[in-house]
Order: sequence, then C-alpha cells, then structure tokens
Amino acid sequence: MHILLTNDDGINDPGLMALIPEMRTLGQVTVLAPDRNWSASGHVKTMHRPLRVKEVRLMDGSEALTSDGAPSDCVALAVLGLLPEKIELVVSGINPNANLGHDVTYSGTVTAAMEAAIWGLPGVAVSLNAPENHIGKLDYSVAARATRWVIERVIRFGLPKDVLLNVNIPYLPAEEIKGYKITRQGLRVYRDSLLRREDPRGRPYYWIGGEAPSGVPEEGTDIGALAQGYVSITPLKLDLTAYHVFEELQTWMDSA
Amino acid sequence: MHILLTNDDGINDPGLMALIPEMRTLGQVTVLAPDRNWSASGHVKTMHRPLRVKEVRLMDGSEALTSDGAPSDCVALAVLGLLPEKIELVVSGINPNANLGHDVTYSGTVTAAMEAAIWGLPGVAVSLNAPENHIGKLDYSVAARATRWVIERVIRFGLPKDVLLNVNIPYLPAEEIKGYKITRQGLRVYRDSLLRREDPRGRPYYWIGGEAPSGVPEEGTDIGALAQGYVSITPLKLDLTAYHVFEELQTWMDSA
Repeated sequence: MHILLTNDDGINDPGLMALIPEMRTLGQVTVLAPDRNWSASGHVKTMHRPLRVKEVRLMDGSEALTSDGAPSDCVALAVLGLLPEKIELVVSGINPNANLGHDVTYSGTVTAAMEAAIWGLPGVAVSLNAPENHIGKLDYSVAARATRWVIERVIRFGLPKDVLLNVNIPYLPAEEIKGYKITRQGLRVYRDSLLRREDPRGRPYYWIGGEAPSGVPEEGTDIGALAQGYVSITPLKLDLTAYHVFEELQTWMDSA
Repeated sequence: MHILLTNDDGINDPGLMALIPEMRTLGQVTVLAPDRNWSASGHVKTMHRPLRVKEVRLMDGSEALTSDGAPSDCVALAVLGLLPEKIELVVSGINPNANLGHDVTYSGTVTAAMEAAIWGLPGVAVSLNAPENHIGKLDYSVAARATRWVIERVIRFGLPKDVLLNVNIPYLPAEEIKGYKITRQGLRVYRDSLLRREDPRGRPYYWIGGEAPSGVPEEGTDIGALAQGYVSITPLKLDLTAYHVFEELQTWMDSA
C-alpha cells in the first residue's frame, strides 16, 4: 500500500510529522505537502502558473517532497505522474483545528481528500479538535494513533466510490476517548465579524475576524460526537445535488 | 430586492457587465467583485491578511466596489456589514466556461453562491458553456436574459434553505435554446496531464495541463441538458454527508 501524506499547514507542521511513523506501519509512505500554510483555501487547481517541487529532509531525517501548490495540487501532481510509483491512498492532516459542518467546503485539509476521490482514490482528511486557547506544543500522538485505526480499516474494507472521509479527533488523553462514530455534518455557527481599520495613510482596510465558530452538538453529527468524546468519521460525497428539492423547483418550470 | 453581483473573473469581465442591466430590471444592484481573476480557486475565507475595498467606475459609467479578496470573501464582506443596506440575493457570474459535475468544488463562481447559502441567502452561480476554441468577444446577451428568467423565479418562489443554484447556459442563439431543465451533477471526465519543463537554469517545473475536461452527456444531468440545448439548473446543497454508505461503514465499527 503506497500512501501519500499531505496537509494544508505546510510540510513542517507537527501534525503531519506525527502521522509519518503511524502510516509507515501500514505501507510505503510518500510525503508531498505544500511549502506554506493554505488554511481556508478551498479546492484549488493551479493552472495559471507552473508548480515547483523540491526535495527536502524532514526533522526526523527522512526525505520528502514539497510544492508551492495547494494541498489539492499536491494530490494532482502525485496522481498525474510526478512520483515513479502509483499512490493508492491519500491521507491529509493532521490539521490542528476541527473541520466540522460547513467547514468542509473551505478546508484545504478536506479538499486534498476530495481531490483523491475525484481521481478514484480513497482519501481521508484528519483534524484535531485542539482547544481555541491552547498555548504551546500540541500533542498529536493520540490523534495519530486514532488515524491509524481508521486507515487500517480503509485499507481492509476500501472506501465506496466517490466517497471520502472527514475524521475529527477530540483533544483528549487516549483513555478518555470513548470510541469511533460514523456521523453526519452538523450545523456550524459562524461568528465572523468585519473589523474596519485605517492604515497610516488613512485608507480603510478590513479584517474578517470575530470569534471562532461554534456548533450545535446534535446527536449523530460530527460536532455531537466530538462533544461526547468520540472520534468522528463523516463520509462525504462528491455529488452535491440537492435531490430533495427537485419537485419544488419543477413547479418553476411549469409557471408562466 | 437588493442583489449583490460578483464573479470569479474579476470586476472588468464582460460576463459580469452583461448581467448588470438585466439584474437592474429586478431590483437594486450592488457590484462587489474581485480585482483579479480567481478561477479554480475554490472556497476561500481570507483571515490571514486584511482585505482592501475600492470604489471604481465601470465601463457603463455606474459605480461598483472591488476587493482584493476571493469571490466568497466579497460575499462575506457584503454580508458582514460593508454595505449600508442588507443584501437579499447573490448572483455570481457570468463565468465564460461551464461549471459541470465535479467542477463545482473548484469553481470560484460556485463558491460565491455557496457562501451566500451559508449565510442564509439565496445564491445563484451562472456560467456560459462557451466553446473551447472560441476566438474574439463572447456574446453574453442570451445568457444574461436566461439568468434573468431564473432570478425572477428565485425572487418569486424563494430558494429552499441550504440550497444554492448552479446554472449553466448553452452558447447558442436565443431561438435555439430549448428551455430550462432541473438537473443533477453529471460525470466530468478530467483529462489533465503533467508537463515537465526546465527553466533556463536547468531546474524542473510542472504545469497541470492537458485537454479541457469532457463529460458524459447522460439524460438528467447538467452535461446532458447542455448537450441538448437546454439551460441547466442544478440545485446544490451544503450537506455533503454520504448517507448512503452509513450502513457499510458501520460494519467497520463492529469489526475487531
């Protein structure tokens, strides 16, 4: 099993480093990750400029590849033949912040897994639900082991066609994690606000700021599972069609 | 009705200009669009840098706003209070190339409508299926009138909660357009390939290139409707959960 590891926080992020030894227990691992942070960057296909790829040495001494493209570009590069050997599975993460509810449409972490699914490969996005006010180094060891649990099953059972997994892991000691739950996307509550500032020349500029999003911890959702201490596994699909409103919209067609 | 117009090709694009007079027949129009091209940029929320907003005068003499953010940032700026009056509807386009099948996850045009839906507003993305080999100025007049037809209905009937519309319009004379069809996402066939080049100093760089994507023109899909000469209206939802695989994944939980 040839596993591609990528992320959206950049190749030197400790969340990626923590995954490497765990994924090596499951197969051959190639790291190809962005050379900078692409958080909240969405699903990118870079076609207007060429991409550079560099060989680098990671902190653990192993070799890796880095690119100036987005996380989804890294997957495309690997799929389209940059690597001499075919990749069979894409794991993206570990993102330090949870990707819940509507976050999945913004998340660079998730779009790497989405790109894998578009190319017919199993793709898994992994995020840690680190507390907002955390100071200092995050401990990714529990999350990395939980990821191995999930990826072992992806390898054993395979993923259904056109489905990717969005995994979110509570920031808890191993013994406090209650287990794994298959979940649906919950309702994210964004608390963004616009901050107007002026530069030294009196011209305005704007920050999209405000508090971190909260969420409704409903039973059965990603947000609910995390709140209860479970690892949340949300299967996502590539078909976004809202089939449930076809009939309603059809009435438009029949109206003058 | 206060309509926000945006796009992903930048404020000076003729596809946006063509929409302005048609949308003015339906309500008050504010234009807030990116100052550059954001094609294939995905769903962006710019939080790591501040955004600039400038007042500009469009080619038709009217006033508009432009920002150095992505299409989805333009929607967020408007929703979060940049404009003195609340917006009630977001129209994004007209993109010169169709956004079909899996394109919707990459498309800056679609993510502007998605951002609207996240904020509880009706959002409509509009794209023209201009031929690949088209040379010279595109004629957006038929597409702009078709967009008015759709938006009139969105205003009259409203859009269901958490649903946005992805509209694709054939590049045909008005009399050859057969009508409007509610469709599902079809199967896009990407034909990307990786081109390796060397710079003058012998260092490699890579283009994600290859032919434009094709598609399977299946009955009932966006691709099928366009192929038959219909305007395609695909309702998309924000909930990407793959409910149909819950049972299958549940077997993982029960396995040792």
